[in-house]
Amino acid sequence: MPEPTIFGKILDREIPCHSVYEDDHVLAFLDVNPLSPGHTLVIPKERVAFLHELSDDQSAAIGRVLPRIARAVLAATGATDYNLLQNNGAGAHQAVFHVHFHIIPKLGKRGLGVGWKSTSLEAGETEELVVKIRAQL
Amino acid sequence: MPEPTIFGKILDREIPCHSVYEDDHVLAFLDVNPLSPGHTLVIPKERVAFLHELSDDQSAAIGRVLPRIARAVLAATGATDYNLLQNNGAGAHQAVFHVHFHIIPKLGKRGLGVGWKSTSLEAGETEELVVKIRAQL
Repeated sequence: MPEPTIFGKILDREIPCHSVYEDDHVLAFLDVNPLSPGHTLVIPKERVAFLHELSDDQSAAIGRVLPRIARAVLAATGATDYNLLQNNGAGAHQAVFHVHFHIIPKLGKRGLGVGWKSTSLEAGETEELVVKIRAQL
Repeated sequence: MPEPTIFGKILDREIPCHSVYEDDHVLAFLDVNPLSPGHTLVIPKERVAFLHELSDDQSAAIGRVLPRIARAVLAATGATDYNLLQNNGAGAHQAVFHVHFHIIPKLGKRGLGVGWKSTSLEAGETEELVVKIRAQL
């Protein structure tokens, strides 16, 4: 058995959290190192590291509650703008290896920094990717 | 009636897209200005601007297919790391006002730039936010 992550320990009630929502499939709590006030984490009770490992049902259960939790965070903080972010892999800024969705209010300069640099694809690369992705779906 | 967004026009088949997945609730297609090869957009057929406006059922339907689409994008691109991002509001980097989830493979330097700067909250602010958020849920 792998060592539980910090989120596994939160689910086990071994360490506390600032819980804001819980149901059979999902727990939501405030991030202890927030990017802005109201920065909330939404996690599945299923203990997998990455989104692509999550069962359809657990992922649907998270999807179902995200709008409701987002509305509550906006009402509580007065924010109108926010980012939903879910990182997979150390190279993509994941630090805790239990799937988690960040809801991050944008309040003035506080919030997520988004670096957006488009890339160029080679001729035919897009069409080739479409074929490859569709073949998996 | 508001003018359809570019994603509304894609749903209406008025403009083409590189579609990779479609069901009754969801359409997924390659971003025309990708941050990395395989950068995919997943949108609901419900035409609302923000996540917090999305119906529970449409949001659950998107949640359900995200792991599957992520697996296909990883298999097609060879990426192991990726970010899921969904922006709400111009201040949070939203450009098209129809809800959309970005699946962005991280391939070397290509992919999402994540700016992460923690903020300090005032004494008692966390506890106050918990009370306020819970009151809305």
